[in-house]
Amino acid sequence: MSRWEPDARGRLEQAAMELYSERGFDQTTVAEIAARAGLTERTFFRHYADKREVLFGGSAHLQELLVGAIAGAPEKAAPMDAIGTALDAVAHVFEERRDSVRLRQSIVAAHTELQERELIKMSSLASATAAALRGRGVAEPAASLAAEAGIAVFKIAFERWIGDTARQQPLTSRFRESLDELKAITG
Amino acid sequence: MSRWEPDARGRLEQAAMELYSERGFDQTTVAEIAARAGLTERTFFRHYADKREVLFGGSAHLQELLVGAIAGAPEKAAPMDAIGTALDAVAHVFEERRDSVRLRQSIVAAHTELQERELIKMSSLASATAAALRGRGVAEPAASLAAEAGIAVFKIAFERWIGDTARQQPLTSRFRESLDELKAITG
Repeated sequence: MSRWEPDARGRLEQAAMELYSERGFDQTTVAEIAARAGLTERTFFRHYADKREVLFGGSAHLQELLVGAIAGAPEKAAPMDAIGTALDAVAHVFEERRDSVRLRQSIVAAHTELQERELIKMSSLASATAAALRGRGVAEPAASLAAEAGIAVFKIAFERWIGDTARQQPLTSRFRESLDELKAITG
Repeated sequence: MSRWEPDARGRLEQAAMELYSERGFDQTTVAEIAARAGLTERTFFRHYADKREVLFGGSAHLQELLVGAIAGAPEKAAPMDAIGTALDAVAHVFEERRDSVRLRQSIVAAHTELQERELIKMSSLASATAAALRGRGVAEPAASLAAEAGIAVFKIAFERWIGDTARQQPLTSRFRESLDELKAITG
């Protein structure tokens, strides 16, 4: 095999997703993922710590996007408005990959250990969001509360978007809908 | 050893907490916990699935209290008000056991795998809270959003209460403070 491995990471991810949905997550080995991608196990481990991590490769990118958008929101924007701007910024990333996002979600939903890792990633996302808000001068506990509320909005809207097989509403509207609903509940 | 084991569960919990804080969680075995409590390992496993679970024995009780208080809130109470009532109902349980709660929290905070189990328990708490709100006729996504927001309030207020070594404010006020702050942020 050549040392030249164009987009090894993407090929491994695609191979893993195919195998997880064909055979199930538990029945798939790293060796099989590497073989399907035409790569070695060693290459796999250069890109991912384990076979769970393949499903969470996007979370660092998501966190960067969210944090960057919060930092870049208009100076006078209130915390929840900065979060709204950030949600808009990440919505298109999910929209563009809708089928793959839905496939991933169905794999995660079927495994307790994957759901647990998802919870951990969401918790990191909330911490990073709170830090980004503090960076804008938002005090505690407002920063942490806004961050947790923002992640709740993200989560609920995301679930509704994933479950909306008729594609009635894009993710951006789901985010807006949930933000408005949260305001109505707490108002 | 007699088959008569008065409050075996409580003795095991106390022994575990002592050992976890003396030696550290990783360095403590189930055999040592049982020995300290004057009980057998077999008795330990009749009460707890593993040594982590000793630290989470209270979460079922907490969930029952929260869900019961939400169900019992005045019929016309809005979702966040029902949650406020429920937080008041659980506050005294923590206040009464403040030192033990703080000790437990310091053990959990020092271990990633315990923090992860805590996240899982909080997620179950949010689901149970959403179900209790739906039981009151609250529609989705309002029920899930209110539940997630309520758990966020719980979490942030609880952290501030734990960190408040000067005991400036009781947990009830911390819950109120966080609820008001959430309303201010989303208002």
